[in-house]
Amino acid sequence: MATHLGKALLKKGFSINQVYSQSIDNAFVLANELNAMPCNDVKFITDESDLYIVCIKDDFIEDIVKQFHFKNKLIVHTSGSIAMNVLADFDNYGIIYPLQTFSKEAEVNISEVPFCIEANNESAKNMLLDLAKLLSNNVYEIDSEQRKKIHLAAVFACNFSNYMYSISEDILKQNNIDFDILKPLILETAKKIQTNSPVKMQTGPAKRNDSEVIKNHLELLANSNHYQEIYKMMSEAISNSSGKP
Amino acid sequence: MATHLGKALLKKGFSINQVYSQSIDNAFVLANELNAMPCNDVKFITDESDLYIVCIKDDFIEDIVKQFHFKNKLIVHTSGSIAMNVLADFDNYGIIYPLQTFSKEAEVNISEVPFCIEANNESAKNMLLDLAKLLSNNVYEIDSEQRKKIHLAAVFACNFSNYMYSISEDILKQNNIDFDILKPLILETAKKIQTNSPVKMQTGPAKRNDSEVIKNHLELLANSNHYQEIYKMMSEAISNSSGKP
Repeated sequence: MATHLGKALLKKGFSINQVYSQSIDNAFVLANELNAMPCNDVKFITDESDLYIVCIKDDFIEDIVKQFHFKNKLIVHTSGSIAMNVLADFDNYGIIYPLQTFSKEAEVNISEVPFCIEANNESAKNMLLDLAKLLSNNVYEIDSEQRKKIHLAAVFACNFSNYMYSISEDILKQNNIDFDILKPLILETAKKIQTNSPVKMQTGPAKRNDSEVIKNHLELLANSNHYQEIYKMMSEAISNSSGKP
Repeated sequence: MATHLGKALLKKGFSINQVYSQSIDNAFVLANELNAMPCNDVKFITDESDLYIVCIKDDFIEDIVKQFHFKNKLIVHTSGSIAMNVLADFDNYGIIYPLQTFSKEAEVNISEVPFCIEANNESAKNMLLDLAKLLSNNVYEIDSEQRKKIHLAAVFACNFSNYMYSISEDILKQNNIDFDILKPLILETAKKIQTNSPVKMQTGPAKRNDSEVIKNHLELLANSNHYQEIYKMMSEAISNSSGKP
């Protein structure tokens, strides 16, 4: 995410002064891309920047921000699940949470990424909103409580649906069938809910209460208790929901 | 699916002679769109067509094909889960299984839909392959056993991932947050696996073994045992898979 965010800011004319990473090699790689100075120790982070973006693993955020030797600047983190008040030692702080799945391989159109913004005071909030609106057309003011809920919902929508894809790939692989055959279906399923509620788009044997097909599928999964259990739980949930999730 | 398939065939210059439906009203609607004659009784289906496409609910296929008063024509069904030999009374029979989720609301680009083809003899197979290739660039020869596995995999990839979307929508709704905020993430998750294996694209707290976030998410789901159970099962499965699904 640091890479995508850094590049997007650079593209909009901002200069990135420093890139911190625990690993100096990683810091070098990104700093090089962003025309910035690399560093691997928080004490080398200068107080000369207007904004400090803490874009690291959730577990390290609290510890890293404690090490800043100045507290009079605007600092944000980019995590979906860490509350804003972990930054409360600073005068000005907030959140820039881009709600997207980033990987180094895939280009992301940042202008379509929803940005969730929160801050501890009006001027910080306005500054972050202005910044986010330069990058994206989808900027939301979201407080820490709501952000947690969004992050939870995103785990279902992104992480768990991706896991469903990987089970389907595995089933095909076990039967020497190319995963390519499923890709248009996966894409269409995600496209359909861009304009329709997913509850209304639900299809499949569980939705139709087609117990014969469900029984056959559970038999086909006999070599994996694990997939069988997931299939059973999901089908029961879909059957019981009858129009409601 | 009958609507999409019928329209695609018409567009390619085929004429549709008759449209059967149990409900004469439904038969009329589609027949009208396809310049065909409607009927609601199998005995009115004439033996004057080159191909008969049985595109109805799985449960009715066997019963309906028994009622045909001629058996010397080429007949196919379009189901993912019903074996081909339910058509074995006919001289020539096979399968045209378009692997896509169809709904009347959404336009589908049929040329990208994977078609799974099977037949009981070479000439029938070649005829069906030629037909499918006129409609789509993704035509596969798939036998009944493989087709069952593909259908099973599609339930995970399409039906279950859609259910994950609907849970995420519900969580947001309960917290007065617009589902729109999640839509770019859902689309990107499906796009990423078009060129990368989903196993490699897996992200999220379960993948990182982030037990703190998982604990918090389970607490947020305290008002729904049902979502809690799904969250728990999926997270355990992802944690245990460590690179493998």
